[in-house]
Amino acid sequence: MQVISHRPSISIDFDKIRAAHERIRAYINRTPVLTSSRLNEASGASLFFKCENFQKIGAFKARGATNAVFALDDATARHGVATHSSGNHGAAVARAAKLRGIPAHIVMPSNSAKVKVRAVESYGAHIVFCEPMEEAREAQCAEVIKKTSAMLIHSFENEDVIAGQGTAAMELLEEVPDLDLVMCPVSGGGLLSGTAVAAKSMQPKIKVVAAEPENVDDSAQSFRAGKRIVTEKKFTIADGLRTNIGEPNFAIVQRYVDDIVTVSEAAIVSAMRTIWETMKIIVEPSAAVPYAAVVEQKIDISGKRVGIILTGGNVDLDALPWVK
Amino acid sequence: MQVISHRPSISIDFDKIRAAHERIRAYINRTPVLTSSRLNEASGASLFFKCENFQKIGAFKARGATNAVFALDDATARHGVATHSSGNHGAAVARAAKLRGIPAHIVMPSNSAKVKVRAVESYGAHIVFCEPMEEAREAQCAEVIKKTSAMLIHSFENEDVIAGQGTAAMELLEEVPDLDLVMCPVSGGGLLSGTAVAAKSMQPKIKVVAAEPENVDDSAQSFRAGKRIVTEKKFTIADGLRTNIGEPNFAIVQRYVDDIVTVSEAAIVSAMRTIWETMKIIVEPSAAVPYAAVVEQKIDISGKRVGIILTGGNVDLDALPWVK
Repeated sequence: MQVISHRPSISIDFDKIRAAHERIRAYINRTPVLTSSRLNEASGASLFFKCENFQKIGAFKARGATNAVFALDDATARHGVATHSSGNHGAAVARAAKLRGIPAHIVMPSNSAKVKVRAVESYGAHIVFCEPMEEAREAQCAEVIKKTSAMLIHSFENEDVIAGQGTAAMELLEEVPDLDLVMCPVSGGGLLSGTAVAAKSMQPKIKVVAAEPENVDDSAQSFRAGKRIVTEKKFTIADGLRTNIGEPNFAIVQRYVDDIVTVSEAAIVSAMRTIWETMKIIVEPSAAVPYAAVVEQKIDISGKRVGIILTGGNVDLDALPWVK
Repeated sequence: MQVISHRPSISIDFDKIRAAHERIRAYINRTPVLTSSRLNEASGASLFFKCENFQKIGAFKARGATNAVFALDDATARHGVATHSSGNHGAAVARAAKLRGIPAHIVMPSNSAKVKVRAVESYGAHIVFCEPMEEAREAQCAEVIKKTSAMLIHSFENEDVIAGQGTAAMELLEEVPDLDLVMCPVSGGGLLSGTAVAAKSMQPKIKVVAAEPENVDDSAQSFRAGKRIVTEKKFTIADGLRTNIGEPNFAIVQRYVDDIVTVSEAAIVSAMRTIWETMKIIVEPSAAVPYAAVVEQKIDISGKRVGIILTGGNVDLDALPWVK
């Protein structure tokens, strides 16, 4: 049985990302890479958007969760899997467990959006509600694991999750090999660490830059300080990015990532709207954060070929940030 | 000089559509065909969405206008082109004229949405405002043509426009040849007539079905009556579909189209929202009309392979139909 407080040692290389891709490819979408001549003109660069908003469950999280669930040996898997999540990771674990035919226990804060609860339910997962605090979530999840012997699938402090998330950048670079730069948002650091390992392995000269809301800039602070700094949770419209970066994730980020820049709330909303209006695709606020950094010129991309991972498209259409 | 009231005789075949494609391919996007396992499950069919919301100017209209502008001989073209439009066709003609380096005169109703006026302006066209009635638009456009000797590019009663619009279905069937059915909306009938000729030429057994809002059902009425019926303009949320079908367009429709079905306003809004939420793409209300017919089961598609042309994605994000 795995104990919730246990932090497994994590080591990631490109072979693990390639193996993840082989393992999950039948269960996920190979998402398209879109370009926009208008956004290229506006930015003075060539932008290549990897559309994980078109991924299963509407977000890249399907990659890591599916890899982690299918990487389990049968003896472990038959006890099921558990996680705590108010967002896309819970749906991703629930879906992967259903595909594998094993139970999933998803601990969700009692104030979770109904649409997210319904998404998890739609995959037949067992939902356990808890108080909406991080400690309550972790405690409740530990309780569930103790009772069921289910395996914890942490949303970012998990080697197989990180390897799975890295497959998005791998597909992007297979399709557009000569990128100068790849960008993604950072929160817990699962996507960023997987992206960095994949990108630097496939294209050693590539730069990897993460973007983060100013209001939750723990990763940027940590990056500058050279050690992991935990900050208090503040509000950001980018609700997928409120978590502090994980310890093992930060270790990988320190080694492979070139910069972490921050963006204002106004820039996130504006970038999100620009992507909707110009590219005619729906991205959630968190997914607009790297393009917000382009608009705010937080990084020099002039004349460069830039890959941007659009992380997800799960938005409440009744509560758009520009509608008063 | 061409007189505005002149109705040129129109004859369309697949060679003209192929020639149109050769002529415009450097200037337009070859738009992707997207699928959704959720919408397939919901409909009991295999749906293939041709994403003209990703087309230049955000709508299929770029195809017909570009073909018509580039089909002109140099002596005619140097006087420029003119049209009247409150919507996507005006922007499409303005863009095509800019690409060819000739003047464009766009007559727009004085109550046109600012965003549409700005789109036309952004291509450097000369805008002439008029009273927001059909007669005023036509009269003003005739005036402009008299003054400038510009060539009228009518938005649907034009052979080259129809041939250009037919290239969307041509690309769709090149990518998915074994469709049982292809669907698109109908208004003036430019897209429908081009689609029908392309589809029946490439796949003689295919069925071609158009969908139309109940509130502006002149095409469906005409189709049943076997003669063109002109109806009064009523409100529909599908603002791109308020025009009556053209005479030459109806002649082609009578020959090649298998059915025209109608949908309620509520179904249009619901279908639009479902496409946004499920496919994470932005389509305008007019573009959701064929899928609304699927949802309202106006046509039996059970087990069939169905192509649906998503006509455009130009939406005012400050005035979404489900936001009160």
